[in-house]
Amino acid sequence: MPSPAPHPDAEDALTALVGLVREDLEACNRLILEKMQSPVQLIPQLAAHLIAAGGKRLRPLLTLAAARLCGYRGERHVGLAACVEFIHTATLLHDDVVDESDLRRGQASANAVFGNQASVLVGDFLFARAFQLMVADGSLEVLDILCSAAATIAEGEVLQLVIQNDTASTEAQYLDVIEGKTAALFAAATRVGAVVAGRPRAEAEAMDSYGRNLGIAFQLVDDALDYSAEQERLGKTVGDDFREGKITLPVLLAFARGDEEERGFWRRVLEERRQEEGDLAHALGLMQRHRAFEDTIARARHYGDQALAALSGFPESAEKRALADIVEFCIARAR
Amino acid sequence: MPSPAPHPDAEDALTALVGLVREDLEACNRLILEKMQSPVQLIPQLAAHLIAAGGKRLRPLLTLAAARLCGYRGERHVGLAACVEFIHTATLLHDDVVDESDLRRGQASANAVFGNQASVLVGDFLFARAFQLMVADGSLEVLDILCSAAATIAEGEVLQLVIQNDTASTEAQYLDVIEGKTAALFAAATRVGAVVAGRPRAEAEAMDSYGRNLGIAFQLVDDALDYSAEQERLGKTVGDDFREGKITLPVLLAFARGDEEERGFWRRVLEERRQEEGDLAHALGLMQRHRAFEDTIARARHYGDQALAALSGFPESAEKRALADIVEFCIARAR
Repeated sequence: MPSPAPHPDAEDALTALVGLVREDLEACNRLILEKMQSPVQLIPQLAAHLIAAGGKRLRPLLTLAAARLCGYRGERHVGLAACVEFIHTATLLHDDVVDESDLRRGQASANAVFGNQASVLVGDFLFARAFQLMVADGSLEVLDILCSAAATIAEGEVLQLVIQNDTASTEAQYLDVIEGKTAALFAAATRVGAVVAGRPRAEAEAMDSYGRNLGIAFQLVDDALDYSAEQERLGKTVGDDFREGKITLPVLLAFARGDEEERGFWRRVLEERRQEEGDLAHALGLMQRHRAFEDTIARARHYGDQALAALSGFPESAEKRALADIVEFCIARAR
Repeated sequence: MPSPAPHPDAEDALTALVGLVREDLEACNRLILEKMQSPVQLIPQLAAHLIAAGGKRLRPLLTLAAARLCGYRGERHVGLAACVEFIHTATLLHDDVVDESDLRRGQASANAVFGNQASVLVGDFLFARAFQLMVADGSLEVLDILCSAAATIAEGEVLQLVIQNDTASTEAQYLDVIEGKTAALFAAATRVGAVVAGRPRAEAEAMDSYGRNLGIAFQLVDDALDYSAEQERLGKTVGDDFREGKITLPVLLAFARGDEEERGFWRRVLEERRQEEGDLAHALGLMQRHRAFEDTIARARHYGDQALAALSGFPESAEKRALADIVEFCIARAR
């Protein structure tokens, strides 16, 4: 008997979504493979390390399903889904350089294998390819949505860098960071689905709201998981954010609710970056005491509910059910 | 009395070009300052370090002058010139991270001041802003030209990384590198000038040829200057490429013309990167013996002549004379 998957319902949601848009997703994957080619062999080699090695393809799936939910019957959404995945992949490559990460999706990260230099430059290539895919689509409205998202992502990443190691950061700043670095691309991914379908602005905005709130919930759960043993099951290490001194909501909650001695601890480990044996375990204890993990997930659930509300105006369909279940999928990772 | 500029003719060419498009250039500079703003203060701070600190604005000047040469009387070329400068600046930021440079235009480089992480992310922001400027222009033809150039630049940069430290690289590979990393943006910068003017394809291609050949000449001269004492006058250090093990034409020529002992030297210092006191002076001596510097400049002059030939179909005008003189400006830096 295979070992039981801990969250069958959540995994089922992703499987159901993939099943609904299987042909589109296969076309998207073919296009991704085609467009990452270059006479410069290192480019497809490095891109394949990240792109072909998998990942859930969550963002392109959102574009494909959003377009179908909006009644689109053409093929443009395939190219835009590939474009969204290229932007995401380029961002991951640059993130790993910035974070000096050695692991990505449980494997050695591209920068660890190919070096920082190649990761920066191949990231640039994938950004450029993403823009070429948008130009090939030919809609200035779509171009505007995705280019603006790319600028917002970069702003979010820079802001994250600025407030890193600063325990005086506010929750509002933290939300600005995750709205930029994560939610902006989710929002653009779902919005362009409505736009290619030629739906009225209100529907495009509902899709934008669905994606944006889902993206915030997704990142909140990610940031909570970084302090959860559950993380290890996902092939990631616990405490990466802690070691980098990243200021995330679980930290902000534990810091705000802690006494002076506890705040001194957080300042030492995150601001001064003087970390010792046992500090991560102590941090996990403080988070448990102050319910920082649970309350971060509760916050994620709040944004998840807003994502579900944004779907309410659409007629019932298999796609609508699948997109609703994806909200649960993103949150249930934290159980 | 001020100290005499060594190349009055060459500097005059740049001054003449600036004088011809002064109002456009001022509008372009205002737009650059406006579009590099962000609520995330580190972005304009870091961008200002590079953008506001000057540089010749050669690429945007080419866009402005090409548009005027083609009879354009509107304002679109200003936004596109700013876009070209943003792409260039983003590339410089990432280059300096990749090269681990400490100096840029005679000043501390952005990565030396703000760190590699900020340079990578602000570079991404400037790329995204460049694409937003293209979208604001609204021409799919222009978008296609500039997005393709961005992809080609990244390919050239990756290829440069691949052949770095490999003395078995060919001249053809070296030309692919500089056509990608430098000439593609020069070509796009001048081509969009003809395109906004609505000129026939043949003129757009002539402008493309002018820019491309000028770009190759420019980079050849740059690569020669890296082995010239003249470099120091420009506020740059001699031998940066040598220390990084970059394979440029002067090296390829000296290597090809050298005996086995000399080739052993080049392999040790560039491939194995074992450099000792006196190695740079020895390299300069070998280059002198084999006329590597002069022949690189002769090659630049060849491409410069092709750039001039590409101008020949255009009617006489102040812009045409200025663009012709710019070819000399780019080459005469090496005297």
